[in-house]
Amino acid sequence: MIDSEIPRDHPRYASLVTRHRIEAGVERGITSKQGLIAQGRGEAFDYLLGERTLPSADAAARAAAAHLLSANRPVISVNGNVAALVPEETIALAGVVGADLEVNLFNRTEERMEAIADHLHAHGATEIKGLTGDGEIPGLAHARGTVDADGIESADVVVVPLEDGDRAEALAAMGKTEIVIDLNPGSRSPRTADVPIIDNVLRAVPNMTAHARELADASPAELQAIRETFDPEATLAAAERAIREGEFADEE
Amino acid sequence: MIDSEIPRDHPRYASLVTRHRIEAGVERGITSKQGLIAQGRGEAFDYLLGERTLPSADAAARAAAAHLLSANRPVISVNGNVAALVPEETIALAGVVGADLEVNLFNRTEERMEAIADHLHAHGATEIKGLTGDGEIPGLAHARGTVDADGIESADVVVVPLEDGDRAEALAAMGKTEIVIDLNPGSRSPRTADVPIIDNVLRAVPNMTAHARELADASPAELQAIRETFDPEATLAAAERAIREGEFADEE
Repeated sequence: MIDSEIPRDHPRYASLVTRHRIEAGVERGITSKQGLIAQGRGEAFDYLLGERTLPSADAAARAAAAHLLSANRPVISVNGNVAALVPEETIALAGVVGADLEVNLFNRTEERMEAIADHLHAHGATEIKGLTGDGEIPGLAHARGTVDADGIESADVVVVPLEDGDRAEALAAMGKTEIVIDLNPGSRSPRTADVPIIDNVLRAVPNMTAHARELADASPAELQAIRETFDPEATLAAAERAIREGEFADEE
Repeated sequence: MIDSEIPRDHPRYASLVTRHRIEAGVERGITSKQGLIAQGRGEAFDYLLGERTLPSADAAARAAAAHLLSANRPVISVNGNVAALVPEETIALAGVVGADLEVNLFNRTEERMEAIADHLHAHGATEIKGLTGDGEIPGLAHARGTVDADGIESADVVVVPLEDGDRAEALAAMGKTEIVIDLNPGSRSPRTADVPIIDNVLRAVPNMTAHARELADASPAELQAIRETFDPEATLAAAERAIREGEFADEE
């Protein structure tokens, strides 16, 4: 099965595409065993959210776009699941907001780093950071904290989709503005973020790009207003509420 | 890391052991990619349940034990995740209630069937059914419906942990008394079951064994009373309520 064989109007399109892409990611050496388990956790939360973008998640995606457009050195961090799930979508977002792409893995191996960089190149990316590894996120064990000095280390705004809690906290401690995409509103990563987007990356990344396109001509004052009126606590609370009040139905 | 290196009193013991065993299952060719994703879904629901056995799940495990002790031909179905997660625990349960063990896979390949049978033998099982495949569950595609004629096909009570919805319904349509272990109270499998146990297999299987040991000398009338007073709808509703009312906290 290839993506194009799944009808776009299928009620569970995102879910089917997601599962297909993540399995292909395993074949290519991009997605790890931990990545598959994380995918399953995400599926469960997305199912409880009704597999839709909440209005609060849409507002977060808009705030994220405003931050990225206002940034001096925005960087989008790409791990195995992000590369497998939304390669083109992430490259498109980077292009629209002028961000760098940096491969950054929780379990860093040269093999996976290169497989992911190759995969992004195959999807049209020109420059990929992360392979140099001459910088660090302070406060983390070496392999966990390795980044590029002219990439994540010197970024002012970072997008870290599907990030683990320790690294999200260490990045926040560096004073960076942090945008996290995660489906569990209780996770430490979105709770640490300046802009937590509680949504499936397959919906959230294109949505950020759409907002960025719409805001391309906005004035600095307009972007500032969008950034400052966004309330991260409220978006987390809205997602929790949606999960608690959601329908329980078969997830198959 | 081996299981014994994880302290029994660790607050997240079940979660750590589960993840360790499932990854070892992949190395041994027992757990599939789909199994890893399913594991992740289970983790998310277990986290929302507070990673504990609800009183309603304990009552379900007791009712399941009563059904198994009253059965003429009880069979416990073993798939890749069950074999990886609870091999000894499942063999112990089969021994206490006098049930057969049958390997039964959603994606049946001879290679995985044999890897699972070998794994169960290595953990002390003597007879393993499922490899003959001379019976069927009517109403399913061939590979999905293949079972042993003197195993699941002729069983009166079946335990199907982590079963998919189509097969759970097809087994119910055969008139079997069905015991399902699943962490999502909204899934079709527990909704189809006579006895849905909304719990982690790592807790539920030993718990069923403990109840079976305690009920070993119970009279047929006592066992009948336990079976008949159990309410599957109430146990599903209690689990849904626990998920809705549970604490959101970091799952890492």
